[in-house]
Amino acid sequence: MKDRFKIDEWQIIEEGFDPTLNKFAESVFSLGNGRMGHRANFEETYSGNTLQGNYVAGVYYTDKTRVGWWKNGYPEYAAKVLNAANWIGIDIKIGAATLDLHYCKVTAFRRVLNMQEGYLERSFIAALKDGRQVSVNARRFYSIVDDVAGAIRYRITPLNFEDNLVITPFIDGDVSNQDANYGEKFWEEVSRESDNDRAFITLRTRKTNFEVCTGMQVNIVQPGEAGNTASRFIEKEKFIGRETTLWAKKGEEITIYKYGVNISSANTPKEELTAVAKASINKVAAKGFEQMLEEQARAWAQKWKESDIVIEGDVTAQQAIRFNIFQLYQTYTGEDPQLNIGPKGFTGEKYGGATHWDTEAYCVPFYLATASPKVTRNLLLYRYHQLGKAIENAAKLGFDNGAALFPMVTMNGEECHNEWEITFEEIHRNGAVAFAIYNYVRYTGDQDYLAAYGLEVLIGIARFWSQRVNWSEQRNQYVMLGVTGPNEYENNVNNNWYTNTLAVWCLEYTLETIGWLKQQRPEVYVALAEKLRFHEVPETTKWKHIVEQMYYPEEATLGVFLQQDGYMDKEQVLVKALPEKDRPLNQQWSWDRILRSCYIKQADVLQGIYLFEEKYAEDVIRRNFDFYEPRTVHESSLSPCIHAILAAKLGEEQRAYGFYLRTSRLDLDDYNNDTDDGLHITSMAGTWMSVVEGFGGMRVRNGDLHFTPFLPVKWESFSFNILFREAVLNIKTSKNGVVLSNRSDKEVCIHVYGNAYHLKAGSVQKVATDVSFAH
Amino acid sequence: MKDRFKIDEWQIIEEGFDPTLNKFAESVFSLGNGRMGHRANFEETYSGNTLQGNYVAGVYYTDKTRVGWWKNGYPEYAAKVLNAANWIGIDIKIGAATLDLHYCKVTAFRRVLNMQEGYLERSFIAALKDGRQVSVNARRFYSIVDDVAGAIRYRITPLNFEDNLVITPFIDGDVSNQDANYGEKFWEEVSRESDNDRAFITLRTRKTNFEVCTGMQVNIVQPGEAGNTASRFIEKEKFIGRETTLWAKKGEEITIYKYGVNISSANTPKEELTAVAKASINKVAAKGFEQMLEEQARAWAQKWKESDIVIEGDVTAQQAIRFNIFQLYQTYTGEDPQLNIGPKGFTGEKYGGATHWDTEAYCVPFYLATASPKVTRNLLLYRYHQLGKAIENAAKLGFDNGAALFPMVTMNGEECHNEWEITFEEIHRNGAVAFAIYNYVRYTGDQDYLAAYGLEVLIGIARFWSQRVNWSEQRNQYVMLGVTGPNEYENNVNNNWYTNTLAVWCLEYTLETIGWLKQQRPEVYVALAEKLRFHEVPETTKWKHIVEQMYYPEEATLGVFLQQDGYMDKEQVLVKALPEKDRPLNQQWSWDRILRSCYIKQADVLQGIYLFEEKYAEDVIRRNFDFYEPRTVHESSLSPCIHAILAAKLGEEQRAYGFYLRTSRLDLDDYNNDTDDGLHITSMAGTWMSVVEGFGGMRVRNGDLHFTPFLPVKWESFSFNILFREAVLNIKTSKNGVVLSNRSDKEVCIHVYGNAYHLKAGSVQKVATDVSFAH
Repeated sequence: MKDRFKIDEWQIIEEGFDPTLNKFAESVFSLGNGRMGHRANFEETYSGNTLQGNYVAGVYYTDKTRVGWWKNGYPEYAAKVLNAANWIGIDIKIGAATLDLHYCKVTAFRRVLNMQEGYLERSFIAALKDGRQVSVNARRFYSIVDDVAGAIRYRITPLNFEDNLVITPFIDGDVSNQDANYGEKFWEEVSRESDNDRAFITLRTRKTNFEVCTGMQVNIVQPGEAGNTASRFIEKEKFIGRETTLWAKKGEEITIYKYGVNISSANTPKEELTAVAKASINKVAAKGFEQMLEEQARAWAQKWKESDIVIEGDVTAQQAIRFNIFQLYQTYTGEDPQLNIGPKGFTGEKYGGATHWDTEAYCVPFYLATASPKVTRNLLLYRYHQLGKAIENAAKLGFDNGAALFPMVTMNGEECHNEWEITFEEIHRNGAVAFAIYNYVRYTGDQDYLAAYGLEVLIGIARFWSQRVNWSEQRNQYVMLGVTGPNEYENNVNNNWYTNTLAVWCLEYTLETIGWLKQQRPEVYVALAEKLRFHEVPETTKWKHIVEQMYYPEEATLGVFLQQDGYMDKEQVLVKALPEKDRPLNQQWSWDRILRSCYIKQADVLQGIYLFEEKYAEDVIRRNFDFYEPRTVHESSLSPCIHAILAAKLGEEQRAYGFYLRTSRLDLDDYNNDTDDGLHITSMAGTWMSVVEGFGGMRVRNGDLHFTPFLPVKWESFSFNILFREAVLNIKTSKNGVVLSNRSDKEVCIHVYGNAYHLKAGSVQKVATDVSFAH
Repeated sequence: MKDRFKIDEWQIIEEGFDPTLNKFAESVFSLGNGRMGHRANFEETYSGNTLQGNYVAGVYYTDKTRVGWWKNGYPEYAAKVLNAANWIGIDIKIGAATLDLHYCKVTAFRRVLNMQEGYLERSFIAALKDGRQVSVNARRFYSIVDDVAGAIRYRITPLNFEDNLVITPFIDGDVSNQDANYGEKFWEEVSRESDNDRAFITLRTRKTNFEVCTGMQVNIVQPGEAGNTASRFIEKEKFIGRETTLWAKKGEEITIYKYGVNISSANTPKEELTAVAKASINKVAAKGFEQMLEEQARAWAQKWKESDIVIEGDVTAQQAIRFNIFQLYQTYTGEDPQLNIGPKGFTGEKYGGATHWDTEAYCVPFYLATASPKVTRNLLLYRYHQLGKAIENAAKLGFDNGAALFPMVTMNGEECHNEWEITFEEIHRNGAVAFAIYNYVRYTGDQDYLAAYGLEVLIGIARFWSQRVNWSEQRNQYVMLGVTGPNEYENNVNNNWYTNTLAVWCLEYTLETIGWLKQQRPEVYVALAEKLRFHEVPETTKWKHIVEQMYYPEEATLGVFLQQDGYMDKEQVLVKALPEKDRPLNQQWSWDRILRSCYIKQADVLQGIYLFEEKYAEDVIRRNFDFYEPRTVHESSLSPCIHAILAAKLGEEQRAYGFYLRTSRLDLDDYNNDTDDGLHITSMAGTWMSVVEGFGGMRVRNGDLHFTPFLPVKWESFSFNILFREAVLNIKTSKNGVVLSNRSDKEVCIHVYGNAYHLKAGSVQKVATDVSFAH
C-alpha cells in the first residue's frame, strides 16, 4: 500500500476517498493524548467498512481466557483493551436523508494529520442520491494541555439546496468490542443527564467496575442567526443525542463545535466523576475551540523541541520519522505511573493487554532521550507497583521465596497471554525489566531510584533466575531449559544464549547493586533485606555460583554464540534462498515448519549483543552479525532496528540504512498488510533508535554521551533533539560535518568520534568535518 | 473411589443411590453394540447430576476450531462426537407428580451390568414427597444380534397407593452437546411420524448432513387388562411421546416394553431411512424382549468364547479384566470399516474425534488375538480409506509428492486437534499406522492385504518421513527436529529416539515390502508405482541413505538410548522423590515445569523397545527399563501396560503385576477421578495386553505363537482364549503348570518356554509344570 499518502514534512495527507482503505486510514489518522484516544472514525454516520474505536487509558475488562486445550498455569481471565463510549459522533440529517458517505458520491475528499500542531482535519463534498450536495470541513484534536478533553469543529455547507438540517451530536456508550468472545458488551450505564447544551453519561465496566463519565458540550453557529432553535435531547440507555433542527440556506456554512471529556475512576473518585466532567467541559468550552487549538500547537511545539528529528534531502524519511515520534507521544506522555504503552496504543484493540517487553526494550530508550527522566521513571514504577503480582505469577508456576516473573502481556500486573510457549517460557522479558532499570540509571544518574525501588525489583528477578536454571550433572554447569527467546520462531528450546546471558547479567547487576547499597546506604539495605526476607549468604552465594558456572552455547568452529542448543542441526539455508511465495513465513508455513527451520523472526543473539555491546570485541560482533543476519526474516517489526544499530556499529552504513527503511514507514505504507487493526506503536521507538543509536551512534558511557554519526547517502543532513541530564541538545550531521548545539543553560560534555567536547550553555560547535557516509 | 461396586465375576453391581456419583456410574454402566450406545442415564426423568449421552457411530459434527492464538496449519473445523436423540426416555407421572429420583427418597437401589449376557438392570423403590411409593425394575440392552436396535423392559409397581399412572415413552431429538462452543444445538428435524404404538423421528446434523431416523415401539402390559387405554401422541419439534394413562392398583406390576432403533445415513440411503427403521422395529418388536435377550446372551457367550480371560483366586481381578473386554466389544465389533474406536467409545463426548493412535498401538493387538482377522483388517482399511486426507493433511504442512501424515485425532480423516505441539509434531502416530499393518500381517499371514492396500499406505508414510528428517551438516547424519514423542510431557524436542527409530523402521519395512511385491507380484507393483507416481530410484535411494545415516541419541556412559537430545541436562530427581502433593503432575504443576522436568508421562523409549524387542539384547532392555521406569509417572492410562510387558519379559513378575493393577480397575475405581466424562476404552486393550503379552508372554515369531507364562502370586490360575489363524485356543496357567487347549478343528504349533508343541484339533496338552511365579 505504498504511496497512499502524500509526502509532506509535517503532515500526513490522504486525497480521495477509498472505502476499501478506510480501516487502514482510520488507524493512521488516529488521535490521542496519552489519557485517551480514538481511531479516525467519521463524526457523521458511516455504514461502510470501519472499526470503531474510542479508548480511555487504563480502563480494561478481564475476559475469560479463550483456549482450545487448557494448560495448568494459564490465567482464568485476561485483561483486554476496551472500546469506550463514542463521543465524537455527530449525526447529520439533510431533510429526511442521513449523511452517510457509504451512500454518497464523495469528491474533494482530503484528510490531513497535522503533526506539528496536533490535529486532524477532514474535508469533502458529498452528493446524496437525489443530487443534493454538501461540503464538510471537520477538524478535531485531543488536547495535550487539557488532557481529559477533546474538541471538534465541524462545518457543513449546503452547496445546491436549502432544507432543514437535523444535527445530532451524541455520546453513544452502547459500543461493542471487536475482541469479544461471544459478541457480548462490556459497559453498563450508571447515570445519564443533560442540560441546555451539555450531556453526561457515566458507564461502568462489567466485572472490573471502572467508571467513566463521558461528557459533551455542543454549540452550533449559523451565520446571521441569534442562536440555535428547536433543540431537544434524545435519550435511551447508554445514549444521549442533542438534536437541533435548523433551516440551512444554500452556500451558508453552519459550524458545530463539540467538546468532549472523559473522566475515569482510574484517576477520580467515582462519586466525583460527573462533577469533574462538568467542570472540565465548562473549562474547555469557555476557552473555545480556537484558543484550545492554539494552546495545542504551542504544546506540540515544545514536544518537538525536545524530540524532533530533522532530515534534509529526503521528505519521505522526514515525514516517516515524525509520524513515529508523533504517534509515540500521542500514546504515552509519562504523566501517570498507572499507564503504559500498548503495542497498538489508542489505535486498535489487538494484542489485548497494554504492556509487553516492548516498553522496556524499545520505548525506554526513546523516552529517556526525548523526555524528562520522570517519564521513564513512571514506566519503571509501573512495573514496581506490579511486583506483587509478578511474585504471585511466579508462585503460580512453582517458584517461591519472592521470585518474580513479570507477565508477557498485562494491563494490571496479571498475565493476559495464554500460549504456554510464550506465557511460561518467553521469560527473557524479566531481564528486559531489569535492564530498563540499569538503562535508566545509566542515562539519568538517578541512583536514588535504585535504592528506593529498583533493587527490590532486581532481587525479585534475580530470585526468579536463580530458581529457573538447573544444575546439569552431565555438563557440570548451570543450564536453562524450556525457554522461548526473542526469536519466537523457536519454542521451548534449551539454553537460549540470549536468555542465559541476560539472566546472568541480572544476577551480576543485582549483586553489584546490593554491594553499592550496603556501602552507600547501609540502613536502607538493612530495611530492604528485612522487608524481602533476603538472606544474603545463601542467596547471593548461589547467584555467584550461577554467574561463574553458567553454560553458554557456542559454535567454536564458526566462532559465534549459538542461539540455542541444537541450532546447528537445522538445515542452514539462508533467507535469500527462500522463494518469494514463501514470505512472510508466518502466513505461508505451518508452525512446525517454521520451528524446525533456521529462520529467525527477530534479533535474538544479536539482541543480546546490542544490549551488552561493550563486552564483545568488534570481530566477535561481526562474526555473529554475519552469521545471524542472513538467517533473519525480520517478521517482527521490532527486529530491523537492532540490526540497523549493529550494522552501523560495524561500519555497514548502507545496510543500516536498509534496515531503517523497513520500519520507518511500516504503517504509512502498510508493509505488513495489518495496519487496519491499528498502528505498531512500540516498534516506532525502534525506528527512532535506528536513527539516533544507529546513524547517530549515540551511547552513554560513564555518564557521558558519545556519538559516531554517519550520513545516509540520500540525505543532505539529519539532526535530532535530545534531553540529557537537564541539557537540551541538538546533534546535526551533514555533509559538512557534525554540529552540536546546546540549547539549554547547562554545560555538558559530549564525545564525537572519540573526542570530548565541553559544550557551554547555549553554544553551538562544529566538531567534525569528515563525516562517514553510507555506501 | 475404590469399592463403589460389589465384586462379582461376571457383574458390576452398584448398591444404594448416591447422586454425587451418578455421572461416574452412568459411565461405568454404559451400553453399546458397536453401532450405537449410551450412557446409563435413567429412563424416567432425572433432574440431578447427569450427563445425557446417546451416540450413533460414525455420526459427527464439524465444529469451528476453538483456539486462543491461531497457528498456520490448524484445521478450521474439527469433527466431534455428537449426542444423538434420546430414545430410552420413559416419563412417568404418578397422579400429577413426575417420578424423578432427584426429588424422591430412594431405597433398595441396585444397578447391575451383566457382562455375561450383555444387559443393564436397575431396580429401586422411590418414595414421593407425599409418601406414595413405587418399585421399579428396568432392564435394557443394545442388541449385538440386531445391531440397529435396543430394548427396554421397565416394570413399575405402586406399593402403597392406587392412582392414575401417566406413562410416556418418548424420543427426544432436542438434545445438546456438552462439548459445544456456544451452547448451540447440532440437530434439525427432517420428518416425524407416529402410528398406533410406533413413532419415528428423522434428524439431520447441521453442516455435516448426516441423517438418523430414530424409531420406537411401545407396548404396555397391565395384568388383567385387555390392552392399553387412553393413549395419545404428544408431538413437538424433534420430539414425540406416546402418553398412556392407566389406573394402577396397589401391588400390581405394570410392564412397559420399549424397542428403539437408530438407522443412520452412514449405512442406509437417506430416502430409505424411515422405511428401514419401520422394518427394523417391526422385526425386533415381533421377536419381543425376552427372545431378543436370549439371543443377546447367546451372542455374548460366543464373544466370550473367543476373548475371555479367566482368573481363579482373585475375583476383583476377574471382574476387572472382563469389564475391560466387555467394554471393548461394546465399542467396536469390526463389522464396518467406516468405524473406529474412540477413546471414550459410547460413554462420553470427551476427546472429540473417534480415532487416535491408541487404535493401532493398543486395540489392534487385542482385536487381532480375540476376533476374526476381518475385524483388524477393517481397522486398517479405515486408515487406507483416509489416505487421501492424510496426503492433504501433509500437504497443508508443506510436504509433497504424496507424503501422508495421518491425523492425531480424527473422525473422517481430517485433523480434529489443534495444539501445534501435538497436531504438527506428535508424528510418531504415522509409525503406529505402519506398524499395525506389519502387526496384522505378522499375526494373520494375510500378505494379500499388503499388496492390495498396505503398501500404498506404507509408501505415503515413508515419503513423509523421508521429507520430515533433515541432514545435519554438523553431525553428518540425518536428524528429526521439532517432534513430540509418546511422552507428551516433552514438546518440540529434537531427535526423539522413539520417533527416529520408528521412522527408520517404517522406511525399512516399506523397502522390504516393495522388494517382496516386485518379486512376488510384479504386475501389481508396476500398477501401484504408476498410480502413486512412485520412482523407485531417487526415492528409495534417499530412504536407504536415511536408514544408514540416521542419528539416534544415546547416553554412552549409562548405556541407554536417550529419549531426546538434551535429556541429560535435566535435573535427574526420580519419581519416588516427588512429594505426594505434587501428583498428578498434570494437575499440580504448570506446563513449563512439567516440560523441563525429567518426568515421563508414558512409555517413550520403552514403547520403542516394546515394539522392536527382538532387536535388543536383554541387558540393553534392562538398562533402559531401569533408567526410564523410575522417571515415569504413568499419567497416561496407556503407559503401565507397556511397562508391565517389559517387566514380565525381564523376569520382574511382581513389578509386572503392579503395573497391571494400575490399569485394570482404572474406571471401576475411578483412579484418575475423571470417569464422570466417560470410560478409558482404548487403554482397556492395554490391560488385556498386560495379561496376555505380559503374564502370558505371548509373541508371534515366524508365523508361530510363543508363550512364556508366569502366574501372579495372588492368583490360582489364569487362562485366556485367543484366535490364531483359524484356531481357537485356550492357554491356562496355574500352579500346576501350563495347559494348552485347541478348541478348534485346526492343528496349530505353539511354543511355550521355547519348546514347540503341535496341538491337534480339539486336543488338550499339559506342557509345563514348572511355572514361574511373581515374587
